[in-house]
Amino acid sequence: MATILLTGATGYIASHTWLALQAAGFEVVGVDDFSNSSPVVLERLHELGGRPPVFERADVCDAAAMEGVFQRHRIDATVHFAAFKAVGESTAKPLEYYANNLGGLLNVCRTMRRHGCTRFVFSSSATVYGDPESLPIREDARLTATNPYGQTKLVGEQILRDLGAADPAWQTACLRYFNPVGAHESGRIGEDPRGTPNNLMPYVTQVAVGRREFLQVFGDDYPTPDGTGVRDYIHVCDLADGHVAALRRLLDAPGSFTVNLGTGRGHSVLEVVTAFARASGRPVPYRIVPRRPGDVAACWADPSQAQSLLGWQARHGLERMCTDSWRWQQNNPRGFEA
Amino acid sequence: MATILLTGATGYIASHTWLALQAAGFEVVGVDDFSNSSPVVLERLHELGGRPPVFERADVCDAAAMEGVFQRHRIDATVHFAAFKAVGESTAKPLEYYANNLGGLLNVCRTMRRHGCTRFVFSSSATVYGDPESLPIREDARLTATNPYGQTKLVGEQILRDLGAADPAWQTACLRYFNPVGAHESGRIGEDPRGTPNNLMPYVTQVAVGRREFLQVFGDDYPTPDGTGVRDYIHVCDLADGHVAALRRLLDAPGSFTVNLGTGRGHSVLEVVTAFARASGRPVPYRIVPRRPGDVAACWADPSQAQSLLGWQARHGLERMCTDSWRWQQNNPRGFEA
Repeated sequence: MATILLTGATGYIASHTWLALQAAGFEVVGVDDFSNSSPVVLERLHELGGRPPVFERADVCDAAAMEGVFQRHRIDATVHFAAFKAVGESTAKPLEYYANNLGGLLNVCRTMRRHGCTRFVFSSSATVYGDPESLPIREDARLTATNPYGQTKLVGEQILRDLGAADPAWQTACLRYFNPVGAHESGRIGEDPRGTPNNLMPYVTQVAVGRREFLQVFGDDYPTPDGTGVRDYIHVCDLADGHVAALRRLLDAPGSFTVNLGTGRGHSVLEVVTAFARASGRPVPYRIVPRRPGDVAACWADPSQAQSLLGWQARHGLERMCTDSWRWQQNNPRGFEA
Repeated sequence: MATILLTGATGYIASHTWLALQAAGFEVVGVDDFSNSSPVVLERLHELGGRPPVFERADVCDAAAMEGVFQRHRIDATVHFAAFKAVGESTAKPLEYYANNLGGLLNVCRTMRRHGCTRFVFSSSATVYGDPESLPIREDARLTATNPYGQTKLVGEQILRDLGAADPAWQTACLRYFNPVGAHESGRIGEDPRGTPNNLMPYVTQVAVGRREFLQVFGDDYPTPDGTGVRDYIHVCDLADGHVAALRRLLDAPGSFTVNLGTGRGHSVLEVVTAFARASGRPVPYRIVPRRPGDVAACWADPSQAQSLLGWQARHGLERMCTDSWRWQQNNPRGFEA
């Protein structure tokens, strides 16, 4: 069975993908530098996977370190999760975002090429659609970026297109994630943001578990049914399965592709709050505060291309997303901290 | 007087800018790795400048090397010329282009920041206008890239905009070069492309000097007066003066800016051939061959912004460009080769 390298392997989406790949019979080699994740994830993966994870601590921007990884392991394909991902931080630290996100991508690709490994899955994002012109969003929509984080995703995709045009041996998949939430049903791994969460669900769960007093809802005057922002939330385990499907396709059939990974359904902030309160039995006090600059009113995917190309579709609904997020947060009120 | 770091300092435009900066009273520190230039340039700069050039051999992507340069010299501003620049090659080697051009830019900026140096001139290109919607081209025209080289210029500009937005201490100038030709009037330095020239003028001069049998004219069915492509050729010494003007502005006044450096006049391939044959007294046999993919029909600058902002405008016309190109080629039939 094929061996898959996961970069940024102990992050939120990557750790769930690791389990999904193992369940599907793949061998996995994980790499992370723990710059934004915890080594405790490896213990949990051992526990859930039934065997010690194959892991190397390394920075994807470190050429010698990545060369070593490829010398020690025969890698068939890479899923490149490793990247900085906070929009606001990217505006404050653009050099760090460009250097880490593009430098890491380029270094991994160049190392792969030296080892004849040319199958690559890239963690892209719905952020490349900017403020969408129409909904649902198809993959051929206009692309734009409104901050350095988004630029690194946009340029990352472009690099992979240029790479495929230069050398058809490269088969690449750009997966445009919508809004991942939820957690593994075991409640042993999940999203564990450092500092103030940038995303809605971890904020909601931290309020419910008593770590924060109330939720800030950024704007209630958007042109949406209840005035709050609408997003396409997708269960992280569905997202993980999307990676398995993408890898199967890359390994079995020629060609590169770009697909949305979303459910095709939009939920407003207040819908999520209500669903979460119901699922957890806890109140989620919130306050309406001004809009955040750069936030769009509404965004949801047309996921039909992933369905037709990969035979993949999201299976879990909002209730399950909330139940699993809550189980993770309740069992790990301070995340992976001891 | 201020000390200016030139990266890619022994290249064509940089070497002419070096002399112009010295003539204007600046101290210059040059850095190059000779990956696409000759150390002989330094001897010529010594001869023309009347003193040994201050130079360090270093790769701009090498963090330790650039740190050393900034430790040994107190730099007030950087002109970042260092980059790969062949459009066709960029399509074949996208990873190398992104890694070198963006990695170099990011490494230089991060090194500068550590040393409190935040004035930066970036070698951009008219290539960021893609196929222009109207002529002459103003700086606020739509930007696009049609190849990895162009992408690195487009993204490089974006990185600098993001950097300025994140930290107003940064003052940056993006100089969008049109088509540099000509050479220093001494005939001692000039353009010396390796392999087959990608640009018109060195091809023409190599034909005239007998290194090549005939000129290939790529297409004579463009919607231009004589059917051949029209470009805004600018004398490299005018371009060098544009850098001096940009640096003066960055050092004297707050703010960042982006300006075209062109003459505002377009000349067709056949006009250049005719002018060159007249200036050199040599015939320039040519053959019409098919269009090159990606070439646009016509492109010339609106240079008024550089005039109003920097008080700069190009002084030399096509005849002088041809005379100086020819003097350089005739005196150095094999460029800087011994």
